[in-house]
Amino acid sequence: MKMDIATVNALPYEDFVDILGNVVEKCPIITAAVWSGRPFLSLAALEAAISEFIDALPESGKEGILRCHPDLAGRDLQSGSLTRESREEQAGSGMGALNSGEASRMARLNQEYKERFGFPFVICARMHDKENILRELSARCQNERAVERARGIEEVKKICHLRLQSLVLTDNML
Amino acid sequence: MKMDIATVNALPYEDFVDILGNVVEKCPIITAAVWSGRPFLSLAALEAAISEFIDALPESGKEGILRCHPDLAGRDLQSGSLTRESREEQAGSGMGALNSGEASRMARLNQEYKERFGFPFVICARMHDKENILRELSARCQNERAVERARGIEEVKKICHLRLQSLVLTDNML
Repeated sequence: MKMDIATVNALPYEDFVDILGNVVEKCPIITAAVWSGRPFLSLAALEAAISEFIDALPESGKEGILRCHPDLAGRDLQSGSLTRESREEQAGSGMGALNSGEASRMARLNQEYKERFGFPFVICARMHDKENILRELSARCQNERAVERARGIEEVKKICHLRLQSLVLTDNML
Repeated sequence: MKMDIATVNALPYEDFVDILGNVVEKCPIITAAVWSGRPFLSLAALEAAISEFIDALPESGKEGILRCHPDLAGRDLQSGSLTRESREEQAGSGMGALNSGEASRMARLNQEYKERFGFPFVICARMHDKENILRELSARCQNERAVERARGIEEVKKICHLRLQSLVLTDNML
């Protein structure tokens, strides 16, 4: 059941981090940090606090966030070690049901991307289907590193937005 | 088997984060961020990069790191959900073998500490036995919040130092 923002604001930090700690993949420190900024007037304010924390990180920290993300249709999906959120998102966009041609193309492009940039291709899978993801991955391999770092962080924020919305009531639903 | 620093420097980010991602408890973003600074001339240089990343975080980020740490002899120890590193450290300092008086005193003081500061008591358990930890916890409950935040981060760095030493050869052993 989704919480309203008043319930979120009343959570001790341990519950806050337990419930919201993976809105940025494997970065509970970010959730744990913004707890210091309670009370949040709205879900949008909580989301803004997370965005501001991310934006204030040095470029290495932004790259660090990207490197905490699994490859799409990669080894963590194969081995069953994805976080629950990532598993659901990857399944929803068809990453678990690639045919062998798609799977090998995805693996090759993921590897090319990682070798070029030193961080993985991050995209908000819930907003794309598999054909679209392959097309984006192929196109984004051609970008400059700084462009892709910024683009990856934009996608992190979209993923965060949807994860937050699945946990907390949006303001107009109060 | 411990790696030398040349081996560490040659790791792709995925292996670097897999192996070293918990040197700061539940903060793989920090390890993943400092990968950008390779090559490291020594283990000491890698440790310094981690320290510098932590020091450059806003105060909320430092509190975030502390909030990613479990209580000593707390619910994660009881439920078996500690990280491997924390489990070994807490076991080594006798946290799994408190008598009932010690356990209730620890629980009460942990709670008092968290209510006062909004983050948990963090101490490098490997450097202390249980009597010493209870004494420190009781004394540190009396400090100012800013003092405890800084003190907690000092302890995070000591924990990180020992975790790094268990994984990477120190320079004079090369």
